[in-house]
Amino acid sequence: MTQPNDLLPADLLPEGLEDRLPLEAARITAAMRACLAVLDAHGYDRVRPPLLEFEASLAGRMAGVAKGEGRAMFRFVDPASLRTLALRSDMTPQVGRIAATSLAAAARPLRLCYCGDTVVIKASQLDPARERLQLGAELIGADSVAAASEAVMLAVEALKAAGLNGISVDFTLPDLVDTLAEKAFPLAPERREAVRRELDTKDAGGLRAAGGEAYLPLLYATGPFADALAGLRAVDAGGALKSRLDGLEAIAAQIGDAARITLDPTERHGFEYQSWFGFTLYAEGLRSAVGRGGTYRIAGSEEPATGFTLYLDRLAEAAPQPGAVPMVWLPFGHDRAAAAALRAQGMRTRAQLAEGEDGRVLGCTHILEGGIPVALEAPS
Amino acid sequence: MTQPNDLLPADLLPEGLEDRLPLEAARITAAMRACLAVLDAHGYDRVRPPLLEFEASLAGRMAGVAKGEGRAMFRFVDPASLRTLALRSDMTPQVGRIAATSLAAAARPLRLCYCGDTVVIKASQLDPARERLQLGAELIGADSVAAASEAVMLAVEALKAAGLNGISVDFTLPDLVDTLAEKAFPLAPERREAVRRELDTKDAGGLRAAGGEAYLPLLYATGPFADALAGLRAVDAGGALKSRLDGLEAIAAQIGDAARITLDPTERHGFEYQSWFGFTLYAEGLRSAVGRGGTYRIAGSEEPATGFTLYLDRLAEAAPQPGAVPMVWLPFGHDRAAAAALRAQGMRTRAQLAEGEDGRVLGCTHILEGGIPVALEAPS
Repeated sequence: MTQPNDLLPADLLPEGLEDRLPLEAARITAAMRACLAVLDAHGYDRVRPPLLEFEASLAGRMAGVAKGEGRAMFRFVDPASLRTLALRSDMTPQVGRIAATSLAAAARPLRLCYCGDTVVIKASQLDPARERLQLGAELIGADSVAAASEAVMLAVEALKAAGLNGISVDFTLPDLVDTLAEKAFPLAPERREAVRRELDTKDAGGLRAAGGEAYLPLLYATGPFADALAGLRAVDAGGALKSRLDGLEAIAAQIGDAARITLDPTERHGFEYQSWFGFTLYAEGLRSAVGRGGTYRIAGSEEPATGFTLYLDRLAEAAPQPGAVPMVWLPFGHDRAAAAALRAQGMRTRAQLAEGEDGRVLGCTHILEGGIPVALEAPS
Repeated sequence: MTQPNDLLPADLLPEGLEDRLPLEAARITAAMRACLAVLDAHGYDRVRPPLLEFEASLAGRMAGVAKGEGRAMFRFVDPASLRTLALRSDMTPQVGRIAATSLAAAARPLRLCYCGDTVVIKASQLDPARERLQLGAELIGADSVAAASEAVMLAVEALKAAGLNGISVDFTLPDLVDTLAEKAFPLAPERREAVRRELDTKDAGGLRAAGGEAYLPLLYATGPFADALAGLRAVDAGGALKSRLDGLEAIAAQIGDAARITLDPTERHGFEYQSWFGFTLYAEGLRSAVGRGGTYRIAGSEEPATGFTLYLDRLAEAAPQPGAVPMVWLPFGHDRAAAAALRAQGMRTRAQLAEGEDGRVLGCTHILEGGIPVALEAPS
């Protein structure tokens, strides 16, 4: 028999891949169910796409995303088809595929949600994890202000249901440069990428050097929503951005005080495939984003859509530990009906299997005696 | 932008991989939660191992399993470590690894459970699926009759909780030939594999040709539990199997009439790594097995263990469809507090996003009017 110990340490896992042990797994499961319950209650039906697909199909539907940092997928040849398969790094394109194929005839807007594991070849600098439990909702057939409002509200409600506090939402305008370049501050298409990059890194000198001097005021229209919006309105004297800014204002009004809102109109990281609106979600106790979303068009079908993704394993780090329920020790010859009744009441039980076992050592807080659970002292 | 349509039909998935659309996904999720609730109630703590591991580690811990039909794993080189990674085809070895490493110091018996996606390169003849949602429980540190009884009872209770009927359990004795060859009907080690094979295929002529004439009566000691056990006791005049047969009888007595019990002592398919006891689970309406389990030793640590696996996507085919809850249409300007109250009561809502939308077409059974849900007529 091959002993893994001959080859590498038995407990070594590849970089960026982790076991979730009972306490952490319980937090993740509780957060997942709380989020899914919110999506279900708002009429989103869950779909379960496969872990693997033809690489050409997944990559084609990922469009800009596939080129983004850290989204590269593991690939391998399928002996059954002799084609290249890929392990999904994002479930959003799969939901788009389902909407465009099996559910092409379903009425729009179509509300779908999903939850599953995703893997990337390379971790990002901010997050060493290569596996992520992704949960999200997609509103297919709409990318309006109303759709965007629903997506943001739903994401905030899901995070709160998972027990997170101090939620903030950072709005962005992914197609800002293209819009201004066409309608307000002319910029040749070949210079836009450089301008976007300098805006993203907030480099005023670089922006001037890239010929984007007219875009300098955008660097200062960032921060708490009301102030940043006023700054953007001042930049937008010609009204090129008016519909977008009115949209942001309507979304913010819907959110009210459910979350703190900020605006960073030039942020583009992670929004490579969004259209007019994008948002990033943060929560107290977590430095990295816990999710993001926005409006987009489904690659291939070009249908408008709005959606968001939450990173469950990350947000579960700040989620409360689910309350422990009594664990009742069932000694030899216990009353099986009484034990079943305790379980039906929500208690947990562990049964004695061998002489010498001590329920306290096995994590039990109570013992079944005379048909009722009696508290045990902690093991000394 | 690459159009997947240029390359292959947009809705084509690789052989053996499938989307689960809303109705089926809801059945799978309901069955999964019902099964997990049973395992949790009986004191099994969930762990979440990663989708990928070093191939050497996974394969080493799979021992016999890796060689079994259809369990081959997808492999690929990890650019981060330059080692070969594999996509898990079975979560049991991962739970064994966790028990032997991170939870090595936890008290025994250790009760762990898991649920996650697994993938094999090649489907089996009986089941074209290459992806399976596997759920299971492992009782680590015990492979006694009491442990085996707990595993069988738990598996049956989980299947019932998932809504399955007509459950039957087929017992087997995976190490039967080795035991008899050493203690009753001598057989050189190099001839045992042929005898096992002919017994498994129930080929009397082949069994004689393989030198296993003494094993012929085993072919008839199969069927309903009481009769088959009596047949085996008759074969076992020398008492080589006595402890095993007493064990089977004790397990069967515990199950009572919770499930129909059969015995097929020579079945070995899927039990390549089990020790003295194995079982296969069937349910009404499903021709293929819905799960299997048994006693074994964890490869590497050689710790005794007992466990079982359920194939959730397969058993969900016969599970009842979860009851539909009212879906309430929320027209423009609806009372948001009233809508939230309906959701808190377990109803689902879908909100109007644009002029011209018809709640009935969007699957709603009710409309929120005057703060209460009013039934809608079905769309004509």
